[in-house]
Amino acid sequence: MATEPPEDARNSADTHPGASPGKTPRTARGRATMRRLLDAAAQEFAESGFHDASISGITRRAGTALGSFYTYFDSKDAIFAALVRDMSAQVAKAAAAKITPGSSGITREGEALAAFLGFAREHKEIYRIIDEAEFADPAAWRAHYEGTAKRITRRMDDSVAAGTLAPGDNEVRAWAIMGMNVFLGLRFGVWAQDRSIEEIVSATTALLRGGMGNNR
Amino acid sequence: MATEPPEDARNSADTHPGASPGKTPRTARGRATMRRLLDAAAQEFAESGFHDASISGITRRAGTALGSFYTYFDSKDAIFAALVRDMSAQVAKAAAAKITPGSSGITREGEALAAFLGFAREHKEIYRIIDEAEFADPAAWRAHYEGTAKRITRRMDDSVAAGTLAPGDNEVRAWAIMGMNVFLGLRFGVWAQDRSIEEIVSATTALLRGGMGNNR
Repeated sequence: MATEPPEDARNSADTHPGASPGKTPRTARGRATMRRLLDAAAQEFAESGFHDASISGITRRAGTALGSFYTYFDSKDAIFAALVRDMSAQVAKAAAAKITPGSSGITREGEALAAFLGFAREHKEIYRIIDEAEFADPAAWRAHYEGTAKRITRRMDDSVAAGTLAPGDNEVRAWAIMGMNVFLGLRFGVWAQDRSIEEIVSATTALLRGGMGNNR
Repeated sequence: MATEPPEDARNSADTHPGASPGKTPRTARGRATMRRLLDAAAQEFAESGFHDASISGITRRAGTALGSFYTYFDSKDAIFAALVRDMSAQVAKAAAAKITPGSSGITREGEALAAFLGFAREHKEIYRIIDEAEFADPAAWRAHYEGTAKRITRRMDDSVAAGTLAPGDNEVRAWAIMGMNVFLGLRFGVWAQDRSIEEIVSATTALLRGGMGNNR
């Protein structure tokens, strides 16, 4: 664990995860083109779905030549896999950016939820893309959730060590909290914005802080 | 609310939700054939995916003539929509069957989670089918989650009224709990069974009962 790079670097979207083997861009211009292709792919897959999306549709949206696509990616499957990893990293980065330095415990979980709800409202396409990965790229789909759960477990381990979270089963808690966040983001981020992010975060942190039992 | 039928009847898989218009079976034999077709469709869609699944594949698995299919359903889309409603009802029915009469509050939430984890272990195909509905039948997909969230909200309203749950924002709580259950079922029901249902339920009910804050 100690040998891993810091979270920000590890999860930065700027690292362009997932060019096909031997195709990692080596110049700033190459990285910018690859970024444009990934953003165009997000639009194309979200609007057309994996099956109907096409490489020419992606390059048209990106305003690049077809040859540029193959400079970085071997296939539609390859850019889809890269996109899933890229969106996964973007979510993690957005969350990290919104967390107050030194925040811990329930406060930190609430900040992460607020960041995720904001991200879901701005990037509604993320659900369709990550969810379609279950069928188009099951390994990338599973890696996204296992990676996210590990990150949540780690930050809760830190909070328990800091004394800001009661000790408990952080693996189960992490999967529970990830599921909460995903469904709250779907209902209150993507489907409707009839309630404010503050209300959602307040109700959720109250649940996480003190539970809802009435037998005390 | 008081005019609704009791939960067991409303959610019974025996009501065969979703024959195509004008095609509801009127005999016990017809209902049995429709049941066989829905069970065969669950296997076919889970193994082949929506796109590659075929009506002839479904009737072959069901051991019925092709004509029987059209007695109840208009199309592959129609039986898929019926299947999503049917699985949604089966989950609700399995949960209702495992809840101790009169149980309330956190105890009832824990029983519902235990029932769902057991159901997910026995019917791993439910994830693939419900998840694919996001693409093959978005309205049925959304109805499944909105219906489930309403059911959870209602049972928490009952618990608050009975004094077994602290008052709070039951709409947000319901979406949070549904998300928890879905992801715990994916990780500890479908992907791996390395931990017992009792451990998962115990850690989750501890979280729901008293939270995990450490600032009291």
